[in-house]
Amino acid sequence: MGGDGGAKVAVEGAGLALAADPELTIDLVGHEDQLSALIKGTDASRMRIHHAPQVLPADVNAAAAIRRGRDSSLWVALDLLERGKADAAVSSGSTGALMALSRQKLGMLPGVERPALMAALPAVSKPVWLLDLGANVNVDAPRLLEFAQLGHVAVQVIEGRAPAIGLLNIGSEPGKGPDVIREAARLIEAETSLEYFGFVEADQVFVGDVDLVVCDGFAGNVLLKSAEGAVRLMFSELRRQLKGTLSGLLAARQLKRLHDRLDPARHNGAPMLGVRGTVIKSHGGTCARGFAHALGLAAVEVRSDLVNQLEQQLWASY
Amino acid sequence: MGGDGGAKVAVEGAGLALAADPELTIDLVGHEDQLSALIKGTDASRMRIHHAPQVLPADVNAAAAIRRGRDSSLWVALDLLERGKADAAVSSGSTGALMALSRQKLGMLPGVERPALMAALPAVSKPVWLLDLGANVNVDAPRLLEFAQLGHVAVQVIEGRAPAIGLLNIGSEPGKGPDVIREAARLIEAETSLEYFGFVEADQVFVGDVDLVVCDGFAGNVLLKSAEGAVRLMFSELRRQLKGTLSGLLAARQLKRLHDRLDPARHNGAPMLGVRGTVIKSHGGTCARGFAHALGLAAVEVRSDLVNQLEQQLWASY
Repeated sequence: MGGDGGAKVAVEGAGLALAADPELTIDLVGHEDQLSALIKGTDASRMRIHHAPQVLPADVNAAAAIRRGRDSSLWVALDLLERGKADAAVSSGSTGALMALSRQKLGMLPGVERPALMAALPAVSKPVWLLDLGANVNVDAPRLLEFAQLGHVAVQVIEGRAPAIGLLNIGSEPGKGPDVIREAARLIEAETSLEYFGFVEADQVFVGDVDLVVCDGFAGNVLLKSAEGAVRLMFSELRRQLKGTLSGLLAARQLKRLHDRLDPARHNGAPMLGVRGTVIKSHGGTCARGFAHALGLAAVEVRSDLVNQLEQQLWASY
Repeated sequence: MGGDGGAKVAVEGAGLALAADPELTIDLVGHEDQLSALIKGTDASRMRIHHAPQVLPADVNAAAAIRRGRDSSLWVALDLLERGKADAAVSSGSTGALMALSRQKLGMLPGVERPALMAALPAVSKPVWLLDLGANVNVDAPRLLEFAQLGHVAVQVIEGRAPAIGLLNIGSEPGKGPDVIREAARLIEAETSLEYFGFVEADQVFVGDVDLVVCDGFAGNVLLKSAEGAVRLMFSELRRQLKGTLSGLLAARQLKRLHDRLDPARHNGAPMLGVRGTVIKSHGGTCARGFAHALGLAAVEVRSDLVNQLEQQLWASY
């Protein structure tokens, strides 16, 4: 039910995901009447509807989400996961509510206190993963090491190879940056199971020297949103300058292709790492194609047994 | 002598700045032989050379910069300022060395402990100023208020009107973000001389709702460099896709214009606020045009008596 486009985007996205993956079945959770109307006329043989009387507002905070309890669509969706009726949950709703309810209903992996959120950014040759984006701010060095460990396993599972890990800093030389980051560098470097690249500055992230960038949730949010804002400004300026010109007309297809490549929808779907279950946060502003991408990512995570692999890695590191 | 392009870029930039401003005179500080060779053949009637035997390396740290003492070109330049022989210093050298030597030689304005660095970003309709970028990390709420006060006066002087001030956060609703930022919001809002807009997220910065964004130096660095990296990625993709096409040929002029508008050189020159003197940090990778822009900014600051205005504002706020 969540996201700026509401249930419509989610149901359309579900249709695209089912068409792309013949093994998938999807449980739609929300207002029964609304969902029934939306799936009418489509091939809904692999969709089921689960009624939930309430929808949490986009700006709900964690405490209120828990207080509202079992009436909300988010609660019902996570309940299906908890009871083994579903293998993964995907939501475009409030990040804070999703984190809090996931933690409460599914529990955490050993030693992990709060979930971390990982998302992909476009880079020169391939996407780069960034973690944390889950509002874990003021984190200490052991927590940054934990992000590196969680991300290492998750990227290995999603992309099929161990990621080169960079630590976000305001300089690339070893002595640069705040104490907590220099301490985290020592911890990550000492962990022989991880491929540590070194410090990366925010502009280097887009060059693609590393596959995974570790940072606290505040810096991660600033990095991701700054890039979004700059790209949006650039496209709007470009459209304004080329509007009504012959070159604009001729370049339209290339610009569309570029926009698609840098489009957040192509990279939509942020795995919530550290909870005992597969939970994917979808961007609130995504389109049906983006929502389908998040559903596909959930299927990859489930099939590769990411949660159990994370658990084993965490036990091994204690 | 500093910057990736060395003395050549600085001398060419000085030539451009002198041509644009008939009242300006420029003191070039560095290797006498090298500088003499560079100005040969140009109209050097308003340039003077001051010899300094040493150049600080780009990655020099603050302590080493101070230890090396009076031999370095940076020291000699700031010494001219201290002795009243120059009105402003502009450098493309190490930020850390520039901050440390400025603080030591010029002293700080009342109550300010470390300099803050302010830079301009392109936004939809006008540049947006961002502070701090001067590696002030882990700052407390009173320090963020101080950034707002320094930036308020500086932007008023540079642009001729009081800026609407945003505080960088990971959500725009009042309850969002870390304690230190919510506390800073209360302090800035209570200061009636400041025009406080509220929280801004990193993508909103480029929309231009605010004129000045306040943040700690880590977040500011990440915001600025993430935008640079994303824009660079986008231009390189665009060039790759349009290369050899008719539309690319036809759009070349518009692309050039867009690049110029978003070009960091157009916004080059970061005032170092809080020191008792006009000091401008120029981007290490800038071109002659960018260096000339930084020199022009120094002249604006001196003519509008920014340092004294900052001092008065700071006294008034105690």
